[in-house]
Amino acid sequence: MVYLTRREHFNGAHKLYINSWSEEKNREVFGKCANKHYHGHNFDVYVTVKAVPHAETGFVINAHHLSKIMKREIVDRLDHKNFNLDVPEFKNKLGTSENVAIQIWRWMEPHLTDCKLHCVKLVETENIYVEYFGE
Amino acid sequence: MVYLTRREHFNGAHKLYINSWSEEKNREVFGKCANKHYHGHNFDVYVTVKAVPHAETGFVINAHHLSKIMKREIVDRLDHKNFNLDVPEFKNKLGTSENVAIQIWRWMEPHLTDCKLHCVKLVETENIYVEYFGE
Amino acid sequence: MVYLTRREHFNGAHKLYINSWSEEKNREVFGKCANKHYHGHNFDVYVTVKAVPHAETGFVINAHHLSKIMKREIVDRLDHKNFNLDVPEFKNKLGTSENVAIQIWRWMEPHLTDCKLHCVKLVETENIYVEYFGE
Amino acid sequence: MVYLTRREHFNGAHKLYINSWSEEKNREVFGKCANKHYHGHNFDVYVTVKAVPHAETGFVINAHHLSKIMKREIVDRLDHKNFNLDVPEFKNKLGTSENVAIQIWRWMEPHLTDCKLHCVKLVETENIYVEYFGE
Amino acid sequence: MVYLTRREHFNGAHKLYINSWSEEKNREVFGKCANKHYHGHNFDVYVTVKAVPHAETGFVINAHHLSKIMKREIVDRLDHKNFNLDVPEFKNKLGTSENVAIQIWRWMEPHLTDCKLHCVKLVETENIYVEYFGE
Amino acid sequence: MVYLTRREHFNGAHKLYINSWSEEKNREVFGKCANKHYHGHNFDVYVTVKAVPHAETGFVINAHHLSKIMKREIVDRLDHKNFNLDVPEFKNKLGTSENVAIQIWRWMEPHLTDCKLHCVKLVETENIYVEYFGE
Repeated sequence: MVYLTRREHFNGAHKLYINSWSEEKNREVFGKCANKHYHGHNFDVYVTVKAVPHAETGFVINAHHLSKIMKREIVDRLDHKNFNLDVPEFKNKLGTSENVAIQIWRWMEPHLTDCKLHCVKLVETENIYVEYFGE
Repeated sequence: MVYLTRREHFNGAHKLYINSWSEEKNREVFGKCANKHYHGHNFDVYVTVKAVPHAETGFVINAHHLSKIMKREIVDRLDHKNFNLDVPEFKNKLGTSENVAIQIWRWMEPHLTDCKLHCVKLVETENIYVEYFGE
Repeated sequence: MVYLTRREHFNGAHKLYINSWSEEKNREVFGKCANKHYHGHNFDVYVTVKAVPHAETGFVINAHHLSKIMKREIVDRLDHKNFNLDVPEFKNKLGTSENVAIQIWRWMEPHLTDCKLHCVKLVETENIYVEYFGE
Repeated sequence: MVYLTRREHFNGAHKLYINSWSEEKNREVFGKCANKHYHGHNFDVYVTVKAVPHAETGFVINAHHLSKIMKREIVDRLDHKNFNLDVPEFKNKLGTSENVAIQIWRWMEPHLTDCKLHCVKLVETENIYVEYFGE
Repeated sequence: MVYLTRREHFNGAHKLYINSWSEEKNREVFGKCANKHYHGHNFDVYVTVKAVPHAETGFVINAHHLSKIMKREIVDRLDHKNFNLDVPEFKNKLGTSENVAIQIWRWMEPHLTDCKLHCVKLVETENIYVEYFGE
Repeated sequence: MVYLTRREHFNGAHKLYINSWSEEKNREVFGKCANKHYHGHNFDVYVTVKAVPHAETGFVINAHHLSKIMKREIVDRLDHKNFNLDVPEFKNKLGTSENVAIQIWRWMEPHLTDCKLHCVKLVETENIYVEYFGE
């Protein structure tokens, strides 16, 4: 079993703000991230899959093929988008890195047939990242 | 003469959109950056100053002091802000990296008295950065 | 279950030297690290915690809150310190990266109540790092 | 139990090309990697070992000693080499990152006696890496 | 005047070997780089252009447009290529990083009309890079 | 004229403390860097030289040869050393990054005969670096 990881990139905007809360409570919990005019990040997303390498090609998965799936399922949905306004899945759920990572798992998993999805890692800044292993 | 460079960081949102242009022309010129709901970046800003090191301290500038000026003049104005909506200087001028770098120079220069401002470098993504030398 | 990792930074000095050994044996085992006048590193410390994201906030932990705990428990104790001379825990135990990582776990764990500490990763140079998972 | 990871570096050339396949099929499966004149990469290899730190030295393994084993077993065999032509193990097996990682495990494991080999990670580009855990 | 830099990436193979020299002299001058079966690198190329930002768009150059020129003029010619065998410009001249940087300048310059080419930087490994300023 | 840059690495310890000043004044000017027991850094040093590439070899300088000079002139003097106690040049002058960069220029310049020394860059942390151009 070998694990292969591929990185893709997208830039998004979001705000962490719960409408049913007061402005004060939002500021207290989310700090500067509650700015009502949004802020954004350069997100790096790493998708890790695992399989026994194919006997002839030596591949866990063709990394170019994995890249195409990631671009279609992740980048096209999130790049240069406002998560709160442009992404249906985050209309009623906060687009925290935690929730975005779980959602990326759901988008990717159905399209990985010859190998198994192992991890989605989402890097928000050089100081913060999250990982989701599907359970 | 020695050059000293200090990095600080901020996350912002912006859109590249000229209101007097049509939606089509904005899309044609600015591509995905014209998304009306904004997108964002993790910006790294590098400020370079130059001076003959002080005979006793061996310092061009106290890097901790430079950091404090940068936080007050740059980070407090731009971090977790929407450049188009929250920053007065970009109400009537596009907040491209080029324009932001020039503006940072204007904010910083009056506060550097014992050394000379040499360069403002603004890194928008790992693939794009701009530099402004004040002329 | 989502894993969230936060990075903080400190600069320290140490030497790897066992007083009950001869100078020769120290040099043989620890090489240049045995220099009696100390040497130092820029250490990056990554703390990983895990939890089911909170239903409302979407957070495993507020990353700003985690940062404050790390600064108080780790950075205030180790930054710009000489591990051998300034840190009580390393008076009688070598401050190798392995031992420092285990000690960081002990400092952090009591303060993580709503999520579970998963890993302490300590990066000594770009070529060497250690990880401790608490067992 | 603490995990220690050491990085080493090598530059190699390879092509992904199966001789029993047609030129067309090679191009279809391996894309630009099938160029018959080879292409190359800067490979970073990370070897992770695990052990209870030694009571006196505080070491999982002497990182300098681990480095010497990696240079002898990995770098001397692969650095500035053409995997297809210069490395016996890849005469009849494609030198994909997956297969190279498995081979590195085989070269390293017999030489790690006081600690246990945990992972071989091979970074092919900043966007692709593989990991092998020996099973 | 603002300077804008864009990075692109390619993987190539080359050998440093002068046919009119003996094997011994090649080894003596070029070391491992003289391996007759080639070796390779992940090359990062940074192209820097300069101009007064456009009054309306705030752009030195549209970075997406610069990227397209770089992909056509540089990446399509060098990516997954063997410089010695696949690139006409290096049939009779060694494909050292120095020579490749000069050649990239020649390929790029005719296509930069509204701004001025300032620098071509070619990163061969994390420890070595070259820069060419056109003079 | 092409510029070639080579990176080497060393780990050192220092304190910023002027003996003729009071403890209070040292703390006020140098902050945590005045800790009398020292602190340390992983220093990256980049040396840039310039020349017209050699007609036959295509080299500004053989990067391997430059590396050997840097190891002998810089790394052997500073690696795993305490600048204040182990390096004669910093017995009576503070080992700030500014002063160390100037000193590295003095050590390197006499040994560069076929090319010209252009810049010494010393990276103290990921947030601070200095550059010296010899004038």
